[in-house]
Amino acid sequence: MCRWLAYSGAPILMEELLYKPRNSLVVQSLHSQLGAETTNGDGFGVGWYGTSDTPGVFRSTEPAWNDRNLRELAGQIVSPRVLAHIRASTGSPVQQTNCHPFRHGRWLWMHNGYVADLRTVRRDLAMEVDPALFPEIEGTTDTELLFFLALTYGLEADPPAAVARAVGFVEATGRRHGVEFPIQMTVVTTDGETTWAFRYSSEGRSRSLFHSVDVSTLREQYPDNPTLSLASDDARLVVSEPLGDLRGAWREVPESSCVTISGGQDEIRSFTPTVPSMAA
Amino acid sequence: MCRWLAYSGAPILMEELLYKPRNSLVVQSLHSQLGAETTNGDGFGVGWYGTSDTPGVFRSTEPAWNDRNLRELAGQIVSPRVLAHIRASTGSPVQQTNCHPFRHGRWLWMHNGYVADLRTVRRDLAMEVDPALFPEIEGTTDTELLFFLALTYGLEADPPAAVARAVGFVEATGRRHGVEFPIQMTVVTTDGETTWAFRYSSEGRSRSLFHSVDVSTLREQYPDNPTLSLASDDARLVVSEPLGDLRGAWREVPESSCVTISGGQDEIRSFTPTVPSMAA
Amino acid sequence: MCRWLAYSGAPILMEELLYKPRNSLVVQSLHSQLGAETTNGDGFGVGWYGTSDTPGVFRSTEPAWNDRNLRELAGQIVSPRVLAHIRASTGSPVQQTNCHPFRHGRWLWMHNGYVADLRTVRRDLAMEVDPALFPEIEGTTDTELLFFLALTYGLEADPPAAVARAVGFVEATGRRHGVEFPIQMTVVTTDGETTWAFRYSSEGRSRSLFHSVDVSTLREQYPDNPTLSLASDDARLVVSEPLGDLRGAWREVPESSCVTISGGQDEIRSFTPTVPSMAA
Amino acid sequence: MCRWLAYSGAPILMEELLYKPRNSLVVQSLHSQLGAETTNGDGFGVGWYGTSDTPGVFRSTEPAWNDRNLRELAGQIVSPRVLAHIRASTGSPVQQTNCHPFRHGRWLWMHNGYVADLRTVRRDLAMEVDPALFPEIEGTTDTELLFFLALTYGLEADPPAAVARAVGFVEATGRRHGVEFPIQMTVVTTDGETTWAFRYSSEGRSRSLFHSVDVSTLREQYPDNPTLSLASDDARLVVSEPLGDLRGAWREVPESSCVTISGGQDEIRSFTPTVPSMAA
Repeated sequence: MCRWLAYSGAPILMEELLYKPRNSLVVQSLHSQLGAETTNGDGFGVGWYGTSDTPGVFRSTEPAWNDRNLRELAGQIVSPRVLAHIRASTGSPVQQTNCHPFRHGRWLWMHNGYVADLRTVRRDLAMEVDPALFPEIEGTTDTELLFFLALTYGLEADPPAAVARAVGFVEATGRRHGVEFPIQMTVVTTDGETTWAFRYSSEGRSRSLFHSVDVSTLREQYPDNPTLSLASDDARLVVSEPLGDLRGAWREVPESSCVTISGGQDEIRSFTPTVPSMAA
Repeated sequence: MCRWLAYSGAPILMEELLYKPRNSLVVQSLHSQLGAETTNGDGFGVGWYGTSDTPGVFRSTEPAWNDRNLRELAGQIVSPRVLAHIRASTGSPVQQTNCHPFRHGRWLWMHNGYVADLRTVRRDLAMEVDPALFPEIEGTTDTELLFFLALTYGLEADPPAAVARAVGFVEATGRRHGVEFPIQMTVVTTDGETTWAFRYSSEGRSRSLFHSVDVSTLREQYPDNPTLSLASDDARLVVSEPLGDLRGAWREVPESSCVTISGGQDEIRSFTPTVPSMAA
Repeated sequence: MCRWLAYSGAPILMEELLYKPRNSLVVQSLHSQLGAETTNGDGFGVGWYGTSDTPGVFRSTEPAWNDRNLRELAGQIVSPRVLAHIRASTGSPVQQTNCHPFRHGRWLWMHNGYVADLRTVRRDLAMEVDPALFPEIEGTTDTELLFFLALTYGLEADPPAAVARAVGFVEATGRRHGVEFPIQMTVVTTDGETTWAFRYSSEGRSRSLFHSVDVSTLREQYPDNPTLSLASDDARLVVSEPLGDLRGAWREVPESSCVTISGGQDEIRSFTPTVPSMAA
Repeated sequence: MCRWLAYSGAPILMEELLYKPRNSLVVQSLHSQLGAETTNGDGFGVGWYGTSDTPGVFRSTEPAWNDRNLRELAGQIVSPRVLAHIRASTGSPVQQTNCHPFRHGRWLWMHNGYVADLRTVRRDLAMEVDPALFPEIEGTTDTELLFFLALTYGLEADPPAAVARAVGFVEATGRRHGVEFPIQMTVVTTDGETTWAFRYSSEGRSRSLFHSVDVSTLREQYPDNPTLSLASDDARLVVSEPLGDLRGAWREVPESSCVTISGGQDEIRSFTPTVPSMAA
């Protein structure tokens, strides 16, 4: 069911995020520790912000541990904001257009989890997407539909509110079709300036999500650690599972909450889906 | 804009259809003679009927001229009914789920042409598909949507009528959105027993389509031709462009018509889209 | 480090071998039980004999658990002799030309294991290959080199002797370069009539290998088992690990031995590498 | 038979080289003007120098005109030295390890042309490669062998001399096997500081090769051309065929010559293969 990471801070060589850590995302693609499946070999994607108007996205169906082009890019690209994802498909085909992150303008979106009984609810979700946005849907994942619902509900203006409405619509739709626990998710989205991460599931037993603690705090704890001395004060990571085992470096994101990371600050608020006014 | 072929007759080694002819489909993938684009390297697909309940389908995004697995299969598989297609994308991504033939139960479907302004009309077409069938849509091509509209309108019971309704709906939808010539097509579909091929376009200038003449007629004309002596009397081919240049072997399928091939018999009837009663 | 199976017997639908068993090869591609690595997602290959002069080979770098084309072929192709392999690379690139089985004329060849320190010994092995055969080498695996050494030493005339010489040459070369345990292998090869499987390693701790016992014996043991009633009397399987857990159905192939399967008979003999006369 | 380009000058967005020109390399992949084949869809590769020790390389077997990842990278990566290549295979398999550019340390290498009768001469060429370098050979192209021969003969110390010896060895080997015209080539190689391009063929009828003239000269000719005003004074391109049709912008590289580009200077000298002392 996927693993992902979202970095923001001083520009960093992508390799530091994707390959160097002991439990890096590439290691997790072969043997993750905490995921629903240990192997996440159904594709890989990375998005990064640079000097262009929109972020770059590299997506591939090659399992990440094999992908030479990924290793090449990671060894060359330096960026202040990187989203990366390894996929374990929950049913939809393995193809580039079904890999995360998904992009719309300057926005990127990734997800770990699923919309339950997608076959049953898919048409209803697709029909709710703003007709002006509908033609941009390229794949067949629940993730992409969720993204386009959030865009429909104003993601670009107020992400937490839009995601709350999107999740609320998915839950209302699912329940209308007799699905008990319609959604399971950790989601991350960013516009290149701020990053929002969400952890929520209908059943209240969400996939794992962690965020890194303040680097300067860690530096006091581990004054001799070279990695910490190199990291910028405003470096922040949100991850499906910790990239290493430095004690105190990672904090679990609580159930039903949203982490907002802006500059070097992060803020956690509770997250509740909004029940749509029209449930049909 | 693709090239395709449909064979029915005595079981034949796939290689005879795909590689042996002078202007075989694989040759056409690199340099077709009559297509809108000469190169058709955006994927390949072949469907064939054997002893299983449903036809087998092999689809690949490798350009056909390179594809070793295709050559291997073609050298091993013998079948009495084969549909094959080489793709030149009209915009949708190059991925396996966007390669023809598409399949539903025992039915296969292929297309050369396009639905004009797909971005504009796509949502309307998708919404018209029977909700019970909608979850089966895996790709983002106009071809697949057309197939599912035909299935919605009863393809399995009366193919010419269903295709007429589907094309009529596409034209009505297109015109409602200000599209002057909404559809361009040669289409072939089969259930493993009968094959129906259609040639139609809103503008009346359709992509090329040819069908082979009766083999025994040809044998009288060319008594020394070894290929002809090998072909079964009921062998029939419908093709985007002739596979070779034997004079008299190919006849153009007229504009606005449907060829029905059953056993060794073929019948050509005129084809007219049916205007839907509810045009909104 | 790969898993493989080799079937001979009455013609069987490939799906019965690749997908149906509880611990099928496709299941093993995601989670094998006994392999050096549990995931074998670095490619897949299957070879089968039919009516053509040479066997067909389908090889793909898609992980087997994802590969739709594989599932399609398996659901259509019936063959009396099938070799299939899932790959976990020991260093050489993941590409079609590095997938097993390898083919030469009517011969197929697969391997689980490795030639130690391949970088060091590769040139010596390549130079020992018959110059007339050398141009046929398409990849960069130790497996393919081992195959071409065996062909050089007369595989087509006397397989056990040729393989013994090839292994002997690899061990002599390795030791000359200071490699303590130059080779680790289970190998299977066939010409479409007879199948030979080998289990050997320099260290004497070879990868696992099992062969199926006589089906009629099993039928007496399990008179109600439907699978057994379907299998032909001469059906034989040699596998890296058992496909199911029916007690008594599988016997381990001993260290340093060669199994010869012809018709419904199998014979086990000891296998010893032949030290080449010229060790330089 | 491939098309390529080599750029050096002020850092430039890769997109300006690969997509913007009227007859860009991506346009040439579908329809080249001057190549031996018009379609070059057998793979793509690009190498670029950045802040890392070694250049990055992205290689893909997707035809360039389809490759979304390529478009993404091109839209993000800025580099002062870029080598790019589109492939039309002369026989060896289409796989990532057979795409150009090839890399060794800081060196990149690309080629348009062929070594005649490769099957016949391949073993001799492979045996001549320095045994210490041999294990690095990953593919099966004549291009890669030529590169490793040049490395064997001291490419890193004196490129023109090393390439002259490599070509001389290929010609001597070919003639020994009765090949009349053993080699056909345009080759480019760089170490990130200087770029050397060669045009030579045994028959004296080499594939096309052009180099751009001094930008400031062009600016005087075309004072209103925006592209020229943007290009840096030291910008230099060497290409298989012109990227656009600005008159006077391109000069043909003469037969049997070598262009050396360093800083903003280029120098053309004659190129003659060196006959090896030991011709057996």
